[in-house]
Amino acid sequence: MTIQEVASKLVDLCSQGKFQEASKALYSPDIVSMEAGAPPGGSRESKGLEAVLAKGDWWTANHEVHSVAVEGPLIAGSHFAVTFKMDVTFKAQSRRFRMEEIAVYKVTDGKIVYEEFFYSM
Amino acid sequence: MTIQEVASKLVDLCSQGKFQEASKALYSPDIVSMEAGAPPGGSRESKGLEAVLAKGDWWTANHEVHSVAVEGPLIAGSHFAVTFKMDVTFKAQSRRFRMEEIAVYKVTDGKIVYEEFFYSM
Repeated sequence: MTIQEVASKLVDLCSQGKFQEASKALYSPDIVSMEAGAPPGGSRESKGLEAVLAKGDWWTANHEVHSVAVEGPLIAGSHFAVTFKMDVTFKAQSRRFRMEEIAVYKVTDGKIVYEEFFYSM
Repeated sequence: MTIQEVASKLVDLCSQGKFQEASKALYSPDIVSMEAGAPPGGSRESKGLEAVLAKGDWWTANHEVHSVAVEGPLIAGSHFAVTFKMDVTFKAQSRRFRMEEIAVYKVTDGKIVYEEFFYSM
């Protein structure tokens, strides 16, 4: 797949809330995922598809997604950027909030090999 | 200025090749600028407006810009992203090449406080 095709498929799947399906279809086994901040005692960085899917599983299990909007992509060379704007409830605290972030992806040989998220904490 | 106004002004000035003017108008004195890679013996990171303007001065002195296109912005929360696509010649080697990159900016109190560039090397 070209970077345009990868980006379009990611936007399409994520717009439907199918985040894990997007990861399984589009990510390299060697994906590196970088959050804006580290969880307590943890790292900003997750390495490998298994770790990234586990992070997604935790997120999905702990949040109820009321709506998600994806804008973009902007594509330049081997990278593309999108925005995610979500209305979610963190189940453990019944706390509903809006999440807005920019995600940047790097594509090599038709697979996403790096992702980084930008948001304020 | 709101983040929308900051982003619009950056796109407007940079589309005209006025990169240094954009920095002077929109950057915080405490700007942190992160390149995709470090120069030999240097750092990926430049701190402070003076250092960032010096980096820009070096770039301007050493490249001839034939054309520049800016796409975006995509805005999410306190961050926005744009792409830069430039046709430039590196004067020292008379080497003409296309540069494509994604830039992510963070805005606090109407000023850009962080920028990071994504490109392949």
